[in-house]
Formats: sequence, structure tokens, C-alpha cells
Amino acid sequence: MSRNEILASMKEGIREALKYAEKKGKLLQALGIGVPGNVDFEKGFIYSLTNIPSWENVFLRDLLKEEFKIPIFIDNDVNVMALGEHVFGSAKHARNVICVTLGTGVGGGVIVEGTLYRGSTFSAGELGHIVIQRDGPLCNCGNRGCLERFIGNRYILERALELYRLKTPERVPESLTHELLDKAAAAGDEVARFVWEEVANHLGIVLAGLVNFFNPDLIVIGGGISKAGRFLFDPLKCVVKERSMSVPGHHVQIIPAQLGVDAGLIGAATLAMKSETRE
Amino acid sequence: MSRNEILASMKEGIREALKYAEKKGKLLQALGIGVPGNVDFEKGFIYSLTNIPSWENVFLRDLLKEEFKIPIFIDNDVNVMALGEHVFGSAKHARNVICVTLGTGVGGGVIVEGTLYRGSTFSAGELGHIVIQRDGPLCNCGNRGCLERFIGNRYILERALELYRLKTPERVPESLTHELLDKAAAAGDEVARFVWEEVANHLGIVLAGLVNFFNPDLIVIGGGISKAGRFLFDPLKCVVKERSMSVPGHHVQIIPAQLGVDAGLIGAATLAMKSETRE
Repeated sequence: MSRNEILASMKEGIREALKYAEKKGKLLQALGIGVPGNVDFEKGFIYSLTNIPSWENVFLRDLLKEEFKIPIFIDNDVNVMALGEHVFGSAKHARNVICVTLGTGVGGGVIVEGTLYRGSTFSAGELGHIVIQRDGPLCNCGNRGCLERFIGNRYILERALELYRLKTPERVPESLTHELLDKAAAAGDEVARFVWEEVANHLGIVLAGLVNFFNPDLIVIGGGISKAGRFLFDPLKCVVKERSMSVPGHHVQIIPAQLGVDAGLIGAATLAMKSETRE
Repeated sequence: MSRNEILASMKEGIREALKYAEKKGKLLQALGIGVPGNVDFEKGFIYSLTNIPSWENVFLRDLLKEEFKIPIFIDNDVNVMALGEHVFGSAKHARNVICVTLGTGVGGGVIVEGTLYRGSTFSAGELGHIVIQRDGPLCNCGNRGCLERFIGNRYILERALELYRLKTPERVPESLTHELLDKAAAAGDEVARFVWEEVANHLGIVLAGLVNFFNPDLIVIGGGISKAGRFLFDPLKCVVKERSMSVPGHHVQIIPAQLGVDAGLIGAATLAMKSETRE
């Protein structure tokens, strides 16, 4: 889809939301939008969207303001998810939180002393691009050995296929998805369990480092891959405890996100609710 | 020195400060203390001091309150240095800052939105225990491949000797200090320059990760090793820029600390000044 097509479909969605509100006798007071990339929250300006090359340096808020005359707030998608989990989900009322999303990319949102922390250029939270192996494989971001290069969706599947070929060459799955990998792990498949342990180990190294640096109360884990459940969470908790320092390591809790597939929507709405006085 | 000897010498120092103030016609209104370890700032309680085994679980403030009847504030030594640099040094008025100290250990202090960030159990900032090599050598903290395990004082010297033996076996220095290593680098010694480049590379990997995660305005670098000057700072800046994401990587500045050997003292005084209303 071209940039204009995406913009058109975005406007269409907003028009529908406005109509829906009207039908219910409600007034839509503000719009909240989460986008997958680096956004200047104050300007409503998109620097770039990781997987959509045509969206560089776009003043999205200005483009939408031409048509919609209500306050519009635009933030990074993982930031709005963190906001949603903090107000309505599993991080409710927590003080210092790291929200992690595991999907195509590996992202993070940070709550500091009860408030979303955006950083000095609104780009905080990019924990997928912390290095776990200094001479590791090249990552899309230009760095080497980033966490995302090991546990981004497609790298997990590549690694699983590699392990099947190595360990059980007589039954290499023809196609593989995370759902199949979850099911295999649940059914006792050793390769599948090993893959999740490896993912937990990679992620645990980064989270242990962040426990030492940021000393949070809570780490909330969401996104598609987090559905692996205990096959991911059990070894992950062990690695983080083992690799982090004693006081912060014993304090931190690691729990799954609560808002599921709606986290982005609920988060964007939360952004609009919480920001309304700021625009 | 035993715990009681250290405590006695600490009290002696405070008595002297009180006398000095009296002589000057001033009133000492509060005490600020920085200690090398994990401290509960609110309770004035020391969990442990990294290199002084006899100081585990000590209510230091209570011990001092028996004799000194003024407000007493105790914090981690790198936290007070960060505070000092933020109020009087090179991080003056900056919003989001990471202060790094390079010495026997590698520590950090974090300023978030203009305020010292201590974390949920007062242990934030321990960036020396972020992993750069997942299967790396064992660190004192129990983890593997921590930054400190590569660029703590003694590991740098060990590595330099190893490299001299390898590259110029005919002239391996009999004893080596960081000052000698600095001088050698300044005189054009290739091994010495290579050592500083390696240190910059290790440190740069962690700082790039923190630029991505924390998105600071400023990274301030102090401690003994930082005196290596441009042999450390030039390659460090390159590595951080190369390995961090574009927007936060271009924004961040990396500069040396200003307060030098007095950073701890000035920081502890700043702690007392800034905390006075809180005890």
C-alpha cells in the first residue's frame, strides 16, 4: 500500500468511528493513534516507520487535522500499549515498569514513577536493539548481535527449522508457525521446547541487564510470541533471576500482558484520554 | 579494616567537619554520604558494599544518629556523583542523563526528567552488569560476560599485558598502571592505543544499547580510566553512533565528567542540600 492509500484507509476508519459515536449519542472528544516507529509525540511527526518505507518524515497530525477538528495524539505503538497495560491491564498502578512486545520486531515501553517515559527524542524503549553478542549477526538496524536479530518472529522460525534439520532430520516440518511451535512444545516435542528455552535465554540476558540498570517493579510481556506461555515464562524467570543482581533481581516480577490483541486499540484510546489537556 | 574501624573513622571525619564549620561560624545543617554499594536511601540502610564484605545489612543512618543530631542522607556513591555533576558539573540542567564511572567497578547514575532516578529498590544504574557477550567470562556478580568483566580496572591491565606478550614479546612492561597506559598511547604505542579502542568498543556496545532504551540527552563519563581522554572518547563516540538507532544516536552527547576526584564529595554535599526537606 502506498502512503496515500494508508492515509485514506486511516481517515476512513476515523470517519466510521465518528459515525459510530454519533449513533450512540456520544461525542468523540479526541483521537489517539499508535504507529510502529519513531514519532515526535509533541509535533505529531513521524520520523520513520520500521516496516513501511514510504512513511519517512510525515507530519501525520497536520494531515489529519485538515479533516478532523478534534485533538489528535500520535505515539509509538509500544508506548500506547504500555500506557494501556498501565491504566487498564496487568501493570495497573505499578511504579516502574518495562513493557515488552515480542513479534516481528521486539519493542519496549517504559513507565517511570507512574508516567510513560518517552526519552529525549521520544524514542525510548527500543530494547530489541540491545546487543547480546558483540560480534553477532547483522541486524536490520545496522548494529550487530541485537536481541531482535535472535528472537524476532522470523528468526525464531528459522532457528527452529535449523534445529529440526539437525536433530530430527527424518521429520522436519514442511511449514512452521509460532502456533505450531507452541503446540509441539505442549505435546512434549524436545526441539520446540529447546527453541523456547533459547528465546527465553536471549531475552533473559537483556532483561537482566535492564533489571540492573533500571530496577523496575514489573516486566510485562506481550505480543504474539508471549503466547508460548510457561515454555517461555518459566525459563525466562530463571535466567533473569540468575543473571541480575540480588536486590533488584529478587524484587522484579515478570508477568504476561493482559489486554491481548486489543492492547494497541485500548492503548491508543488511553493516550487520547490521558493527553487530552496537553495538545 | 573491620566494620567498627571504618565506622569510627567515618565518625572522626564528621566530628572534624563539625569543628571546621564551627570555627568558620557556620552551622552544619545536614550530612550527605555516598557509599559504594546498594543502599536503601529512605531507610539509610546498606544492603551490601561490593568490595567491603563486613558491611552487609547495616542501618548506617541509625548508627550515626546516636552521635550526630542532624539530618543524615545516605546514597550510592555513583548516584551522588551523578547528582553532583547534574547540579554543579558537566550535566548541569540536562534533562535525561546517564553518568558512568570507570574504575575498579563500572557504575552508573541516572537522571530522569531532571531528577535522580533510584529505581524501585534504590539499585538503578548498575550498567557495569549489562552483558556484552552472552557466553563470556564469569563476573563477580555471578553473571557472565558483563561489561565490568571486560573494562573494570584490573581487566584492562590484564588484557594490556596479554597483548604486549602477544604483539611485542621483546618489550613487555614489568609493571603497568593506567597512567602508564595513557602515556604510552600518547607516545604512539600501538598496543596501548589498541587497548583503549577495545575498551571503547566494549563500553560503546552497552552505551548504544542504553541510548536505544533510555534515549538520553547526555552521557557523562568519569572515574580514573576516563582520563585516557581522546584515546577513549574518540573511538567511543564512533561506536555509540554506529551501533545506536538513528534519531537517539544523533541526539546524544558523550562528554567527560567535570568534578574530577572531588565528584564524590561534592555529590554527597549536593545530596544533603537537595534532600534536606525529605528526611
